[in-house]
Amino acid sequence: MNWQDHFAQRVDNIKPSTIREILKLTRQPNMISFAGGLPAPSLFPSQRIKESTDRVLAKQADKALQYGTTEGYLPLREWIAKRSNHKAENVQIVSGSQQGLDLVAKIFLNKNDKVVVASPTYMGALRAFDVYEVDYLSVECDDDGMLPESLEQALKQNPKIVYVIPNFDNPSGTTMSLERRQALVDLARKYNIPIIEDNPYGDLRFRGEYLPNLLELAAERVIYSSTFSKIMAPGFRLAWLIAPAEVLLPINMAKQASDLHTSSFTQMIVHELTKDDFMTEQITKVRAYYKIQNEAMLAALDKYFPTEIAWTRPEGGMFLWLTLPTQLDATALIKEAVAKKVAYVPGEAFFANKSAKNTLRLSYSIASLEQIDSGIKSLAEVFKGSLAKAS
Amino acid sequence: MNWQDHFAQRVDNIKPSTIREILKLTRQPNMISFAGGLPAPSLFPSQRIKESTDRVLAKQADKALQYGTTEGYLPLREWIAKRSNHKAENVQIVSGSQQGLDLVAKIFLNKNDKVVVASPTYMGALRAFDVYEVDYLSVECDDDGMLPESLEQALKQNPKIVYVIPNFDNPSGTTMSLERRQALVDLARKYNIPIIEDNPYGDLRFRGEYLPNLLELAAERVIYSSTFSKIMAPGFRLAWLIAPAEVLLPINMAKQASDLHTSSFTQMIVHELTKDDFMTEQITKVRAYYKIQNEAMLAALDKYFPTEIAWTRPEGGMFLWLTLPTQLDATALIKEAVAKKVAYVPGEAFFANKSAKNTLRLSYSIASLEQIDSGIKSLAEVFKGSLAKAS
Repeated sequence: MNWQDHFAQRVDNIKPSTIREILKLTRQPNMISFAGGLPAPSLFPSQRIKESTDRVLAKQADKALQYGTTEGYLPLREWIAKRSNHKAENVQIVSGSQQGLDLVAKIFLNKNDKVVVASPTYMGALRAFDVYEVDYLSVECDDDGMLPESLEQALKQNPKIVYVIPNFDNPSGTTMSLERRQALVDLARKYNIPIIEDNPYGDLRFRGEYLPNLLELAAERVIYSSTFSKIMAPGFRLAWLIAPAEVLLPINMAKQASDLHTSSFTQMIVHELTKDDFMTEQITKVRAYYKIQNEAMLAALDKYFPTEIAWTRPEGGMFLWLTLPTQLDATALIKEAVAKKVAYVPGEAFFANKSAKNTLRLSYSIASLEQIDSGIKSLAEVFKGSLAKAS
Repeated sequence: MNWQDHFAQRVDNIKPSTIREILKLTRQPNMISFAGGLPAPSLFPSQRIKESTDRVLAKQADKALQYGTTEGYLPLREWIAKRSNHKAENVQIVSGSQQGLDLVAKIFLNKNDKVVVASPTYMGALRAFDVYEVDYLSVECDDDGMLPESLEQALKQNPKIVYVIPNFDNPSGTTMSLERRQALVDLARKYNIPIIEDNPYGDLRFRGEYLPNLLELAAERVIYSSTFSKIMAPGFRLAWLIAPAEVLLPINMAKQASDLHTSSFTQMIVHELTKDDFMTEQITKVRAYYKIQNEAMLAALDKYFPTEIAWTRPEGGMFLWLTLPTQLDATALIKEAVAKKVAYVPGEAFFANKSAKNTLRLSYSIASLEQIDSGIKSLAEVFKGSLAKAS
């Protein structure tokens, strides 16, 4: 068969993730990877997970192995709700944050609808929205997040939703200031637009003060997304949405049509892990780890990088963002970096509209402290060499 | 916010599953449920699952708890491929069969495309396809499956795909004869239409001879779906697609956008369960159980039901299908049945187009043998009573 003739139009819009292609490169031996957003396996509490699994199977195997409800395992929803000062009825369990984004896109986005995103923004969100054949309005950002003037320009163009990662943004590592959060909420109210608040890294703050989530500032219009992937383990594929009941109703029906429900087994294991305040202990451990990793990378950047290159100084999360002189092309330079056994993600893929090719994302999540030092040193050589050639 | 004004058009097409609404009724105490398609929890090998989980966490925790590949865990894909005489590259792991249907719909179905289905057919498939705002062409069936003349009528109308459950159909319990399988394949070739073969129950044959899957008859145009839900446990949300590489490429990208990948943790546990030929042992046990359950229900129907009512005699699976005299309405009678503490699923919801309200689906999967006898007796009373009133 000539399958191409049979596919739906939206297939033309479905692209593979550049990150996942680059991750394949990083599987070479001795590669230092600053590319993926993989949590450090040393943080997975595998003994505790084993004990939790054993308890679930000993006491509630019939429930854990059976079909479950579409909205998710109630005790887990209650735990999530309590932590966010919401009600369980406002919590929908999803199979990873990516599914949350797909479901939001499914219920909000018609073909040619406009979606407001930061420039740059999370490429997984772009890939989720792409499937629904939308157009993007990109908002200019600085180290405090979206610039209100640029945001208002976008909101005036009648978009369907605003997508934003206020805490330790992927890819930029920046955190939206309280003032900017308030400005976003005020503008979203003025133009009556729903906000999708993606908060996978919120618990990974290792510097600075807690800032209120958009959900706290404007619960009436925020669809909030978070996940167990960064604080526990991505292998469970367990995340959640918090939203008004009127939104969760079609989300729930769309999820039923998409995968019936998320694994009862993994939900019950993770609920078991929330007991005895273990999550507080786990989050404290995860935070302390990323703080050390982050400081090591910033120290190496300060030490090896030329002044022509700028980078963000994240207060949490696992990424930082580099801006090279405009004559440098991070996409072209990835080959040189990989030849020196260092991988990163070129910034290009994180832009919905006009790309800045002189940007790139670095992750400090899984490299060892020694690797961070030597990897950043190698990268400095690559960029200095290219600068020398370009001048 | 007035959320209704913000939703996408497709939301008008997303309906809740009637089954899941009826399942809520069945949670009343002392209810005999012939409604859901829940596997019997006594069949879940929970001790073996515990041992497998412990082994995975002891030896490969870092991999099981980490992000995985979109296509799925390779050793599990290899196991599935070998069992079906295919290659691992033709196997895509999905988060339950429902996700497989959603992904197929996502890559094939434009708005107003036509989908060919049996009349009746699996309502979960209709709900998956509905989201993509399609129209249906319903094919008349008898106890041997789709009638070729009716099928050809549908295929002449330029549909996008044909969806069919050849083995122990949900809801009808019927099995497509070899002759009809060949006729379907011949017609699909003549009109150049892809076939979606849904085979969740194929391993649950307890009578009659094995018949070749459509995948074996026409690998070039079949997208085959099967699952661990009925032979192992639905709580894992683990299923697979087998298809030509050209189809799996967009399916894989669509899955990446939908949920990145299926849980590494559950995939590795289930792979562990495939070792030492345990699946053969498990499937033998499951088959033997459903045979007894099925025979008990057929015996009770023979014993209590009036000759005006007809039912199918499945060779496998967990469902059979009742046809009442046309003046009876199974949707209206569900209340009387529930008052007598027996639940079933009215047939109405299984029709894509014109419904036959005098039909219903019975599941013999979880009721005890005593409950099957007394539940069928009660149902007979409900229908006889209604027949007496109607005449």
